Amino acid sequence: MTTAPREIEELIELMAKLPGLGPRSARRAVLYLIRKRGILLHPLADAMHAVAATARECITCGNVTTTEVCEICSSQKRAIGEICVVEDVADLWAMERAGMFKGRYHVLGGTLSALDAIGPDDLRIPRLVRRVADEGITEVILALNATIDGQTTAHYIAEELEGRCAVTSLAQGVPVGGELDYLDDGTISAALRARKAL
Amino acid sequence: MTTAPREIEELIELMAKLPGLGPRSARRAVLYLIRKRGILLHPLADAMHAVAATARECITCGNVTTTEVCEICSSQKRAIGEICVVEDVADLWAMERAGMFKGRYHVLGGTLSALDAIGPDDLRIPRLVRRVADEGITEVILALNATIDGQTTAHYIAEELEGRCAVTSLAQGVPVGGELDYLDDGTISAALRARKAL
Repeated sequence: MTTAPREIEELIELMAKLPGLGPRSARRAVLYLIRKRGILLHPLADAMHAVAATARECITCGNVTTTEVCEICSSQKRAIGEICVVEDVADLWAMERAGMFKGRYHVLGGTLSALDAIGPDDLRIPRLVRRVADEGITEVILALNATIDGQTTAHYIAEELEGRCAVTSLAQGVPVGGELDYLDDGTISAALRARKAL
Repeated sequence: MTTAPREIEELIELMAKLPGLGPRSARRAVLYLIRKRGILLHPLADAMHAVAATARECITCGNVTTTEVCEICSSQKRAIGEICVVEDVADLWAMERAGMFKGRYHVLGGTLSALDAIGPDDLRIPRLVRRVADEGITEVILALNATIDGQTTAHYIAEELEGRCAVTSLAQGVPVGGELDYLDDGTISAALRARKAL
């Protein structure tokens, strides 16, 4: 609660709904926006309208896009036969920043979760199974989060695709630059089990 | 950097300029906005346009307002003769949330700073001196941050107003709910110097 005019009050309330912003940082952000009205507030409002008008889901993979089929799915340079399965678009972006994977993606839109009553049909799992058959996929790489729900989902998908194509998942181990003393026991155990000959 | 469409890329870049949001949280916020398009993205863009069109500075105190004179300055219920001086609008809102002060405000718009070459004329200090004379002010309460620059500014204002009205400042001491063990030495010393009879 502030004593600001109604318009500003409303903007603060909406900003506070963004992930990573609470009421206090929303107030700070709005005051900053008002100070930077010309170079930030107007452009931001315009950019939001533009995204609201154009953003949509890729009908193939579920990536966010402004065209019917996303840039990655429609690119001729992408390797055929490999699909990387991610939970959401942020994970797809993270994979692309790493720049190693040259195939196409499939965005599940979440993970299986008994607690939240999310089953396979609530995700893009049936569509993944169809793509594997239709696109002649030889390998599905599961890049799901190393959480309970992520791993449950990975196992479910691996079972669904059994006999249709190879199913692999990201290696678990010590992160690059990671110090053993700061790692949790589970990571160290996993890295030990997956040890490699030098 | 992501592989998102240009419109989304632009929105992420603008969002990342907000205080409290870095590139990573900006990406998360934008994906969240796209998912909540109807209930959040459209309303947020509209609210930003509304604020951009209406927000202005109160010509008396410097508060943010949508009218020429802000609600507090034009209120008949506010005590006459007392001005609380704050660095910026966020501090004014903080004072109002505390709900104790019944007078009017004066927003300096920053603090004196030799390092950033900010002098009295860059702040609303001359206007404060004029208000003290014009409005028959008897007490100016300095509610500036307990930083070096804040306290330098407080001393400067106290000198400017000497002989014109009483100048007081917020008490320094142990915060309500504060534990001594977690307080810095300066605060404990200040609280000890300002000790009171029970």
